[in-house]
Amino acid sequence: MKIAVLTAGGDCPGLNAVIRGIVLKGDRIYDHEFVGVRDGFRGLVEDDLVPLPRQRVRGLSKVGGTILGTSRVSPMTNGGTDRVKEVMDKHDIEALIAIGGEGTLTVARMFHDAGINVVGVPKTIDNDLSATDRTFGFDTAVSVATESIDRLRTTGEAHSRCMVVEVMGRNVGWIALHAGIASGAHAILIPEVPVTPSQLFGWVRHAMDRGRAPVVVVAEGFTFAGEEGAVASDRTDGFGRQLLGGIGERVTRMIEEATGVETRNTTLGHLQRGGVPSSYDRVLATRFGTAAVDAVSDRMWGTMVALHGIDIVNVRLRDATSALKVVPRDQWDEAAILFG
Amino acid sequence: MKIAVLTAGGDCPGLNAVIRGIVLKGDRIYDHEFVGVRDGFRGLVEDDLVPLPRQRVRGLSKVGGTILGTSRVSPMTNGGTDRVKEVMDKHDIEALIAIGGEGTLTVARMFHDAGINVVGVPKTIDNDLSATDRTFGFDTAVSVATESIDRLRTTGEAHSRCMVVEVMGRNVGWIALHAGIASGAHAILIPEVPVTPSQLFGWVRHAMDRGRAPVVVVAEGFTFAGEEGAVASDRTDGFGRQLLGGIGERVTRMIEEATGVETRNTTLGHLQRGGVPSSYDRVLATRFGTAAVDAVSDRMWGTMVALHGIDIVNVRLRDATSALKVVPRDQWDEAAILFG
Amino acid sequence: MKIAVLTAGGDCPGLNAVIRGIVLKGDRIYDHEFVGVRDGFRGLVEDDLVPLPRQRVRGLSKVGGTILGTSRVSPMTNGGTDRVKEVMDKHDIEALIAIGGEGTLTVARMFHDAGINVVGVPKTIDNDLSATDRTFGFDTAVSVATESIDRLRTTGEAHSRCMVVEVMGRNVGWIALHAGIASGAHAILIPEVPVTPSQLFGWVRHAMDRGRAPVVVVAEGFTFAGEEGAVASDRTDGFGRQLLGGIGERVTRMIEEATGVETRNTTLGHLQRGGVPSSYDRVLATRFGTAAVDAVSDRMWGTMVALHGIDIVNVRLRDATSALKVVPRDQWDEAAILFG
Amino acid sequence: MKIAVLTAGGDCPGLNAVIRGIVLKGDRIYDHEFVGVRDGFRGLVEDDLVPLPRQRVRGLSKVGGTILGTSRVSPMTNGGTDRVKEVMDKHDIEALIAIGGEGTLTVARMFHDAGINVVGVPKTIDNDLSATDRTFGFDTAVSVATESIDRLRTTGEAHSRCMVVEVMGRNVGWIALHAGIASGAHAILIPEVPVTPSQLFGWVRHAMDRGRAPVVVVAEGFTFAGEEGAVASDRTDGFGRQLLGGIGERVTRMIEEATGVETRNTTLGHLQRGGVPSSYDRVLATRFGTAAVDAVSDRMWGTMVALHGIDIVNVRLRDATSALKVVPRDQWDEAAILFG
Repeated sequence: MKIAVLTAGGDCPGLNAVIRGIVLKGDRIYDHEFVGVRDGFRGLVEDDLVPLPRQRVRGLSKVGGTILGTSRVSPMTNGGTDRVKEVMDKHDIEALIAIGGEGTLTVARMFHDAGINVVGVPKTIDNDLSATDRTFGFDTAVSVATESIDRLRTTGEAHSRCMVVEVMGRNVGWIALHAGIASGAHAILIPEVPVTPSQLFGWVRHAMDRGRAPVVVVAEGFTFAGEEGAVASDRTDGFGRQLLGGIGERVTRMIEEATGVETRNTTLGHLQRGGVPSSYDRVLATRFGTAAVDAVSDRMWGTMVALHGIDIVNVRLRDATSALKVVPRDQWDEAAILFG
Repeated sequence: MKIAVLTAGGDCPGLNAVIRGIVLKGDRIYDHEFVGVRDGFRGLVEDDLVPLPRQRVRGLSKVGGTILGTSRVSPMTNGGTDRVKEVMDKHDIEALIAIGGEGTLTVARMFHDAGINVVGVPKTIDNDLSATDRTFGFDTAVSVATESIDRLRTTGEAHSRCMVVEVMGRNVGWIALHAGIASGAHAILIPEVPVTPSQLFGWVRHAMDRGRAPVVVVAEGFTFAGEEGAVASDRTDGFGRQLLGGIGERVTRMIEEATGVETRNTTLGHLQRGGVPSSYDRVLATRFGTAAVDAVSDRMWGTMVALHGIDIVNVRLRDATSALKVVPRDQWDEAAILFG
Repeated sequence: MKIAVLTAGGDCPGLNAVIRGIVLKGDRIYDHEFVGVRDGFRGLVEDDLVPLPRQRVRGLSKVGGTILGTSRVSPMTNGGTDRVKEVMDKHDIEALIAIGGEGTLTVARMFHDAGINVVGVPKTIDNDLSATDRTFGFDTAVSVATESIDRLRTTGEAHSRCMVVEVMGRNVGWIALHAGIASGAHAILIPEVPVTPSQLFGWVRHAMDRGRAPVVVVAEGFTFAGEEGAVASDRTDGFGRQLLGGIGERVTRMIEEATGVETRNTTLGHLQRGGVPSSYDRVLATRFGTAAVDAVSDRMWGTMVALHGIDIVNVRLRDATSALKVVPRDQWDEAAILFG
Repeated sequence: MKIAVLTAGGDCPGLNAVIRGIVLKGDRIYDHEFVGVRDGFRGLVEDDLVPLPRQRVRGLSKVGGTILGTSRVSPMTNGGTDRVKEVMDKHDIEALIAIGGEGTLTVARMFHDAGINVVGVPKTIDNDLSATDRTFGFDTAVSVATESIDRLRTTGEAHSRCMVVEVMGRNVGWIALHAGIASGAHAILIPEVPVTPSQLFGWVRHAMDRGRAPVVVVAEGFTFAGEEGAVASDRTDGFGRQLLGGIGERVTRMIEEATGVETRNTTLGHLQRGGVPSSYDRVLATRFGTAAVDAVSDRMWGTMVALHGIDIVNVRLRDATSALKVVPRDQWDEAAILFG
């Protein structure tokens, strides 16, 4: 079978390990042939494909980024499924493996509805897909954030400062929650849990009172209780990039003004999505890759691979993209017990 | 409630995070009082206890080792449950949280049968407990092994050598399997899967033929097909320590003799169990700790905490210690597809 | 002899290793007694001292921050040398070891001129002191910056983006230069070397043309050719903190507008000064510490320790604080050859 | 000019950064053409050369190993300088850049004496060349050893064990000295300094008495006072590989028997020479590379590049290979003050 592989959306540590898993197992066990699609769906509608032989994926399990490139181009507004079928037919491509987040998997579902043979691999650094226990990239992001907070804590203590760290998480706070627990933060602010400024100031003061340098972890999508979440969108430019300081900067200024404690912000940003994947992510991504090629070989169209407990399973794309996996209130409460 | 906490058996990254989770939640939510038992069960039978106030666990989530110390002393041959009850009664200790591996949890079950109030926390760096999806320490061990293999690969390639890496795993091969997948090993040798020397030489030659420097990951408990597993025990001294080279050394010599390829062994040993825990292990260990103190507060005696999917649950010690979680043959087969 | 030790100015990885070196050698070889001054010169004028026995410095070689705390308080406007003498006399303190940067060492020189027994230890994460080949903290900062750029590069390549990284260096560009060379940057912007926007755009385009994702490293104190360096000062609040985006943000917007290449900024900030010191910095700091206590014992007042080649030497404070060590033009030219 | 580049002897982090520096500067500034010699001098006498264009060195500054391969083959017993001249003439190669340790540089000197145009780049992970303050690779090796000891310390403390770590250093103890200082070891055993078993046991007991888990760092070439250094050579096989346990194993057994303290050995071995180079080594290696191509362009035959203070200088090969840089007794004494 000739199979196309694409990676779409924001990049994520582990993408290359997925590609490697797909190609190695597909080549050895099933004798499939693979082509890579350049820059996500852009390559698919523009017919920009590259051969993807076994040799091309050598040593990729530990390489960050994606050798195929990625983009946020939507195929639905660039020719749609007809154009995709046309390109696939032209090259005798029988199936597509789409590696991406919620948007990509939703497109994949539309492809499936339109009769295109597609299998999905979930990719979200935010870990916000309800159909899988974990996604690759998340562990690396949490590791980078945790190591960074470990570093920031010591400089905070030397100067008796409050250190604010803004981490990824536009809609969900998993990275903030895990990095905050792992690093022993004194406050964790996430989109799912409304917190008032005075609650935050209380945690900061409480830590100061006991001689600690407060560490505040804030997800980029957090807003204070009573505020509209839309505030953040005012601060982006034409590229969707935040122009002025984000929530980390704002929290920093608020703490400083309210408590008088010298406070510093660090926005980790792209540090969390680049670089060598953690061993956890390499293993999960490799397993996702080999399972995805199994699913293709079994013609399980319209499904994606997922982690349930310690097993890799196949779930229907329809079910996978219906709900965001948010941080449950009780998990945040549990973390909050450790504040201070 | 006054609660004693002990850590027993080999140490493991995350033990201190468990202790911290127990004490912080126990202090804040339940108003429990804690004492630490020194050096595992030794401290329990010898009445060697230390206060464990909130301040003592400050900043511990990222600290390797265990502040309580650990040992392999068995209480059953040192006074048994009567002595343990005596010590607990003397100090008005109502319950015990025992953090340890299979041996420790088996002892905990005996304590429970004898009427001692006990809750267990599973600890095994080998990840070989069937009652929980994962245990803390395993992720750190796999990370250390993977980073080490990444390093060894480059020097192997510079010299066109075969690099053998002996990792932990006396009875099960989970660390070897995961580190081998993560690092793209050309052969993974684990206790669960019999392999003949000629199979191994074949993988080595296959990698060399394609211009690669072969990487062989071997679990310390591996033996070749047809050999008796007991061979390894001949090589230990009075402290249970291997006197001569282990399986890594042996595999190295065998490859060199059979293939003529210059081969080097590295035995990672204690590197895998020391040091700063990974963020994954810190989070899991913290969650285990807070869940254990919940279990004590709910008087769920004779149970231990466990990870099922993304939830922490309570399982009966009786069920938890009955079977070892071995690597299923199909998971190894899956990994073997990627060899070479 | 009774000796006071203080750390002043911004914190820096290795400060604790210096303190440990001072106390261990002073205790064992000279039988000195030590007191720690809290929060830099603040503790000296406010008489806020703590005992500094041998046990207090245990295990400190790898601990970031400073156990003594630090501040930017000047003693000269808070009582001056008379007050310092008063406090030292009150506690029978015969000598002071001052660990700090140019400002601190200048104060130390004034103390010396006023008859106070003082020895300095140079500390500058920016490596800008001309009297010593290297200072501790610099290597850790460059390591953190380099690892960060390694991570950012892969995400840049996945998205064909230009990645800008703002690193420390208000007056000198050593961190930018070394991290830029180590990570293979396509442009390095430092305060010492005037560069025009069109030169920068040329480097970015040149890298894009050859299929690379451009990496631009910019020191926080950089200004474009023809601009006044003072611009930066407009952007700080009452705490001396930059309110709006720094030079990294600005460079990012300029590149995006001029070249049309999607560009992202990451400001590393305090990440570079916190955390576990590199082995290089631990060794250098330890050597500085033991050499400083030798200098005190030899009553070499008014000197500081310094690295010359592979030797630790003593230089006069008067000579040490007279000139900033800037990046020589030819070293930048050399690095620029590698751009692209 | 057409220039050949080779790497010989044991590999070392930074070799690829040297190659990259040579080729990028040679291409851009001098318009030289480069060929790579495969596997050290083997490729030179066997005429096994590969083109080395600019594109081939892309992204190499952070890659461990050597893309050219390396070996310990001597050209002097495989055709000698006549054969080398023949191969160079055949391909119109005007000059050779030889990157290697003492043996390689000695060969380079012989080449120079025979009229071959050669420039050397010093490479020794052991840092044992007297003509240069530092060599690349050393910093990475010390970093790996230090991080490893940090890990081992925590497991030692958990079990109240003595941890022995065998590091590289056949003739000199620089790695052991620096890693031992950086990690706060309780004993450092190096070839240069004779120590009796009872001295060692005293340090171990002293640390135990004060409640510490002793850490002993031993260089592979260490022998006890009064022993012959030649002992070690009995333990190697036909490949020059140690067959039985090395000095680390032996020290471990001796400590255990003499003190009764449970003791464990870890031999770091090849971990120290593989993997991603530290930022320090990347910068130094890059500077060595660009300076080497300057030396070739200036026809400074028979010299090698070296670090003096913060400058790269050229020294004559004759002077560079005459004396080993050993650890001076007073530097070890200084470190020994910190034991315990």
